[in-house]
Amino acid sequence: MNYKRIVYLTFVCSATISLAQTKTQEVLEDFKPSSVNQQGKLFPQVNSQGRVRASILAPEANKVQLDLGGIKYDMVKDAKGIWTGESLPQDEGFHYYQLNIDGASVPDPGTVYFYGAGRLGSGIEIPAVDQDFYALKDVPHGLVSENIYFSKITNSFRRCFVYTPAEYYQNENKRYPVLYLQHGSFEDETGWSVQGKANLILDNLIAAQKANPMIVVMDNGYAYKPQVDNSRPESVFEEVVINEIIPMIDTKFRTIANRENRAIAGLSMGANQTMRIMMNNLNVFSYYGGFSGTSNYPSADAIDVNTFLDGKYKDGKSVNEKIKLFWLGLGTKEPSPFPGSVGAFRNMLEKQGIKYTYYESAETAHEWLTWRRCLNQFAAKIFK
Amino acid sequence: MNYKRIVYLTFVCSATISLAQTKTQEVLEDFKPSSVNQQGKLFPQVNSQGRVRASILAPEANKVQLDLGGIKYDMVKDAKGIWTGESLPQDEGFHYYQLNIDGASVPDPGTVYFYGAGRLGSGIEIPAVDQDFYALKDVPHGLVSENIYFSKITNSFRRCFVYTPAEYYQNENKRYPVLYLQHGSFEDETGWSVQGKANLILDNLIAAQKANPMIVVMDNGYAYKPQVDNSRPESVFEEVVINEIIPMIDTKFRTIANRENRAIAGLSMGANQTMRIMMNNLNVFSYYGGFSGTSNYPSADAIDVNTFLDGKYKDGKSVNEKIKLFWLGLGTKEPSPFPGSVGAFRNMLEKQGIKYTYYESAETAHEWLTWRRCLNQFAAKIFK
Repeated sequence: MNYKRIVYLTFVCSATISLAQTKTQEVLEDFKPSSVNQQGKLFPQVNSQGRVRASILAPEANKVQLDLGGIKYDMVKDAKGIWTGESLPQDEGFHYYQLNIDGASVPDPGTVYFYGAGRLGSGIEIPAVDQDFYALKDVPHGLVSENIYFSKITNSFRRCFVYTPAEYYQNENKRYPVLYLQHGSFEDETGWSVQGKANLILDNLIAAQKANPMIVVMDNGYAYKPQVDNSRPESVFEEVVINEIIPMIDTKFRTIANRENRAIAGLSMGANQTMRIMMNNLNVFSYYGGFSGTSNYPSADAIDVNTFLDGKYKDGKSVNEKIKLFWLGLGTKEPSPFPGSVGAFRNMLEKQGIKYTYYESAETAHEWLTWRRCLNQFAAKIFK
Repeated sequence: MNYKRIVYLTFVCSATISLAQTKTQEVLEDFKPSSVNQQGKLFPQVNSQGRVRASILAPEANKVQLDLGGIKYDMVKDAKGIWTGESLPQDEGFHYYQLNIDGASVPDPGTVYFYGAGRLGSGIEIPAVDQDFYALKDVPHGLVSENIYFSKITNSFRRCFVYTPAEYYQNENKRYPVLYLQHGSFEDETGWSVQGKANLILDNLIAAQKANPMIVVMDNGYAYKPQVDNSRPESVFEEVVINEIIPMIDTKFRTIANRENRAIAGLSMGANQTMRIMMNNLNVFSYYGGFSGTSNYPSADAIDVNTFLDGKYKDGKSVNEKIKLFWLGLGTKEPSPFPGSVGAFRNMLEKQGIKYTYYESAETAHEWLTWRRCLNQFAAKIFK
């Protein structure tokens, strides 16, 4: 009983200290327009403390708020009817946010829009100490192609984005390995090439000869069997990947179509999904990347290798022989249940003698800077 | 003096009649979610009269309006704080719109977003009688590739989208003709492949063997010399097209790199720009498409062929020899100054004995259904 109580008190105390510190910390007036604003838009802005300042004309509104990172910050109206307000300092990297105008949650007209949290909404970019690895630079740029296809399995049109490296169009006979890369929950096939900056990360890695040129396929992890009644939709993403997406990619692009030249990775829900797909199809893939997620999510309990994923990890030696790289990454600020479930998964790997690489993203939570860094690390290690 | 007065009265009378008719016309309750809504979003909706119904939760708002086609329609709040309202019947096709919440003009959280009117905003799709030609069908689909490049002329990163036909990846030695296709004012390089549906139009034409497979390049018509002082920015789009974009496309893609296999077309501002580029570079292009625009815009005056575009139309016989297809299109409901300036341009062509094709889009104004239809007509006639 006392344990819980102490934890609660500790939490309250640190929160109080943190708020007190922030209140006394002056807002530095060095705000600059965010790098993901629409062309010519001056707001939102970010300062050197990582605070976000939003601004919108709403002369007849009663209340306007900046809704960012789970906090709604009240904005203040000036004589011209323009509302302006700042957030507390944010972590480096990319965050989704909205404006709230008299109870209506809407995208900020100042930014470009990103699919996350189950909707197209606003985003803000807090400059990161290591942002150079995903910066747009004057290096050869690959293409990101929108690829529409009809899935017989789901009986619907689907879409994936395909990154082809810059040299793809100069070496017309060369064939390339393929990384299948998946988004997280309430995101879609646009995530990795828009807020994930996967194309820029690969362009920069390849230009610096840190990664081998590769094709990257980014599809939508939501795929369901056509519903005949009101029963719960049944996910068929694995079947779509194995029986439709991979054969299509191997037909449309100059791939090296074997397991030695296929990797699969994903973030959060995508890490969970791709781990299952990997373990069920070791004849198809030989590299795995799990960014902020594992298939025992959300449990932090010790894993029973006899039952977990139908015993796929029972024979650690066989797993080591088949998987060339088993790679896991996590941000140091990730909330529960991620550290617990990833930790339990690592314990299982170690118990089974399965080799793996573990990466920690410093000072980032369950957000895109963690995943950009994971991709940057992982892509440099595969197909070598 | 009286002439102006009469025009004014006539306008008022017809507006009154129109409003009176509309007020008595019942709103039919057969609304369906718009085809360009975000996944799972029920609003906005469109009914069989072409009315748009928007709906948004804004419990504390004083006033919420649907801002569509130059009219702000008041919406009405229910007991749950949800505001709902309908527009008058709209023309078939695609329209940009916004919501206005207590004076704040914001995108509707229900739709996907489109770049137009100088911002990313909401769009609505009114089903058209001929919508089959731009429908997503189970035919082979080409790719739309995002292509980032650094322009030395503008000293900035730029982007174009490149459509490659479905067969491009099956016929690895075949080379293709190229259409350079431009957006209108306050739009950008995304316009043609998003609200323009250029890729679906080409997919359908090619699948039906109505058009020859071709590459389509959609770039951004705003390109300026780097500014050294506060003087007016100088457009260098023609130089970027001729010296940077075309050489890049001919390097990255399997093009047939000669004038007989290059077309250039654009809508509105893009029609004006591409006509100038065409006439200055008859050694580069041999097909021209002007959708809702000509380079004498906005004038309806008779054109002096000695001075217009430096006398490029003086020798009609030479123009006929060089240009394989001179194609113009216009919607029957386009507002001033388009019918006047396109009409004056056609008079000049006829006076000079220059052959051209003229197409009218029935019952459409200066909007995307006109331009989808123009592309559908034009693409079927080039490279043959």
